[in-house]
Amino acid sequence: MSDHPLKQLIKAADEAITAKDFDSLMEFYADDATLVVKPGLNASGKDQIRKAFVAIAAHFKNQLKVRQGRMEVIEGADTALVIMETLLDTGDGNEPIVRHATYIFRKSETDGWLCAVDNSYGTSILDA
Amino acid sequence: MSDHPLKQLIKAADEAITAKDFDSLMEFYADDATLVVKPGLNASGKDQIRKAFVAIAAHFKNQLKVRQGRMEVIEGADTALVIMETLLDTGDGNEPIVRHATYIFRKSETDGWLCAVDNSYGTSILDA
Repeated sequence: MSDHPLKQLIKAADEAITAKDFDSLMEFYADDATLVVKPGLNASGKDQIRKAFVAIAAHFKNQLKVRQGRMEVIEGADTALVIMETLLDTGDGNEPIVRHATYIFRKSETDGWLCAVDNSYGTSILDA
Repeated sequence: MSDHPLKQLIKAADEAITAKDFDSLMEFYADDATLVVKPGLNASGKDQIRKAFVAIAAHFKNQLKVRQGRMEVIEGADTALVIMETLLDTGDGNEPIVRHATYIFRKSETDGWLCAVDNSYGTSILDA
C-alpha cells in the first residue's frame, strides 16, 4: 500500500503536527471529524481538534515529532480504513512511542479525502 | 457505548452469520463495502462478500458462532469507527478465538447505518 494517495496525505499531516502548523493540519479533517485525544476523551469538530493539538504540543514541550511506520489501507463505500504504525518521538531521548493507529477517511468529489475519525490508539482503547 | 444503535445492529449481523442467513446478512453492508477475508485477501461488493461468508461457514464446518465482547464506537463526519471484541466459537470444543475487530459504518438519511469496511483482524493485519 506504499503508493496509496493517503500515504502522502498522512505524511503531510504528520509533518504539520511536527511543525506545529495547526492551520494546515486542520485542512486534513472533515468539519465534524472526531479525534481521540486519549482513551475516553474525544474532541469533535475542528475547533476542539485544533485546541487538542495545541494542548498535546504543550504536553510534549513542543518537542513532539510524528513519523509513519507500516501502513495498510482498506477502501470501501467511499471510505478508507487506515491501519498504521505511528511513531512518536517526544524529544526525551527515549525510544519512540509506537502506536497502532486506526483512521477513517472519507472521499468526496468536491473535497477529496478528509479524515473523519482519528484514533491513534487503535484497538487498545478496549483495554482503557 | 452499550446503548449505541450500532451495538444492536452488529448483534443482529452476528446472529445472521451464526444462522447462516446470508441474505439478511447482506442487508447490513453498503453495496461497495469491503470485507477483509484474511490479512491480504479482501472481498469487495456484496457478491464477493456473500461468497466469502459461504466459504467461511464451510471452512468452519457450519459450526461457527459469533458473539460480541467489549465495544467502543467513535462517530465523526457521518461515519463510525467500531472497535470491538469479536468471539468466534468454532464448535471444536476449544476456547473461542478472540479478535479485536475494526469496522467502519456510514450513516445516510435514506439507508441509516451500513457497513463500509469490515476488518475483523483489526490492527493485527500490520503483522501479517
